[in-house]
Amino acid sequence: MRVYTLDNPVFATYVIAAALMVLKLMGQGWMTVYRMMKSNSGLASPEDAQKGLLNAAPDPSQLEVNDYVDRSRRMHRNDLENIPGFWVAGLLFVAVNPAVWLAQVLMYGFVAARAAHFVAYATKQSHEVRATFYTIGSLIVIYMALHVLWVVLF
Amino acid sequence: MRVYTLDNPVFATYVIAAALMVLKLMGQGWMTVYRMMKSNSGLASPEDAQKGLLNAAPDPSQLEVNDYVDRSRRMHRNDLENIPGFWVAGLLFVAVNPAVWLAQVLMYGFVAARAAHFVAYATKQSHEVRATFYTIGSLIVIYMALHVLWVVLF
Amino acid sequence: MRVYTLDNPVFATYVIAAALMVLKLMGQGWMTVYRMMKSNSGLASPEDAQKGLLNAAPDPSQLEVNDYVDRSRRMHRNDLENIPGFWVAGLLFVAVNPAVWLAQVLMYGFVAARAAHFVAYATKQSHEVRATFYTIGSLIVIYMALHVLWVVLF
Repeated sequence: MRVYTLDNPVFATYVIAAALMVLKLMGQGWMTVYRMMKSNSGLASPEDAQKGLLNAAPDPSQLEVNDYVDRSRRMHRNDLENIPGFWVAGLLFVAVNPAVWLAQVLMYGFVAARAAHFVAYATKQSHEVRATFYTIGSLIVIYMALHVLWVVLF
Repeated sequence: MRVYTLDNPVFATYVIAAALMVLKLMGQGWMTVYRMMKSNSGLASPEDAQKGLLNAAPDPSQLEVNDYVDRSRRMHRNDLENIPGFWVAGLLFVAVNPAVWLAQVLMYGFVAARAAHFVAYATKQSHEVRATFYTIGSLIVIYMALHVLWVVLF
Repeated sequence: MRVYTLDNPVFATYVIAAALMVLKLMGQGWMTVYRMMKSNSGLASPEDAQKGLLNAAPDPSQLEVNDYVDRSRRMHRNDLENIPGFWVAGLLFVAVNPAVWLAQVLMYGFVAARAAHFVAYATKQSHEVRATFYTIGSLIVIYMALHVLWVVLF
């Protein structure tokens, strides 16, 4: 059976979830850009504190770490630690032909968990709230990888 | 010939190696969590130094960088610099229909090199030991990408 | 129609662009290694400041952040924030069977934008120049993800 085709509802589910996570990940970069421009600080490289279109009044203090901007970078790093693992585990999961409902619960569940993690991190919720959504997303990825290994090896 | 199907032993090899690296990458996040909880330090965000289920005795010093926790974050970063490249190079390598033995040597070789890198980094082996395993993994990924370009372009 | 086969010119385009970005990403790691060895500084872990084959004259100052080495690490981080999103958005884009010319413009455009970003960052061009190439690459990835969602959902 061909699995990597849009006729397969499991693959279609994967394509939707994976594309949404592409938008989430790329959007986080733009949130950092927005926060750098709004706060006029948290710049990454020495040459960024020069006069230019993006920086009308340069100042060396613009290169210092600023929690408003750095929070977006930490969110980005957390995404990088979780989303690529989902992309690959999901792609492999499609290969082993799981039930459609299971793929939908896991893949849309991951998208929902990461959306909730985003809100919790951006609004500075307690470590417990953020950790809960991180855990849900991480366990979904780990489950998919274990399921794949089980089917292929046994 | 269909290549992205579990009947193809090269793809089956890829699925096993890629799923193992998903577990390695996600596990590194949990190693950081374990080390944060065990040392009660190395927390990432200001709001984490608040009283809560995960933090019975909060203290501002919990936000300072701690090598025990930061080592796990550096290992995670090194994984992020190498494993996604492997996932993609391996997936492309399947498309060009290589010999099964070659795929097995390269893909399981990458898994073994990263496992050895993990042990070397966690147990603070010398830079030379860690660099050796990093180099093996990196060269495997680079070889697969060059092999793919060679087949497709020539 | 089978899409994930080298007979499909859209997939062949993806394979070439994705393999080039594997080489770019892995090469950035080696640029960091080269800069660490040339400047004999910017080392990542305490144990790296020990005498050994890679470090004939160790000194604690070798562990301090050094812009020459850190610039390569920031370039690497920027790659990690953009290239994996391209790999996945491009793979999904192949599934929806776009026009060959569109795939070529977007995928080779991404490769060109990231090559230009590399040169701009390495040679310390102004923030505006670097931001322009970052923006082109990021918008290409976002466009591909939106295009995929449009085709699959509507």
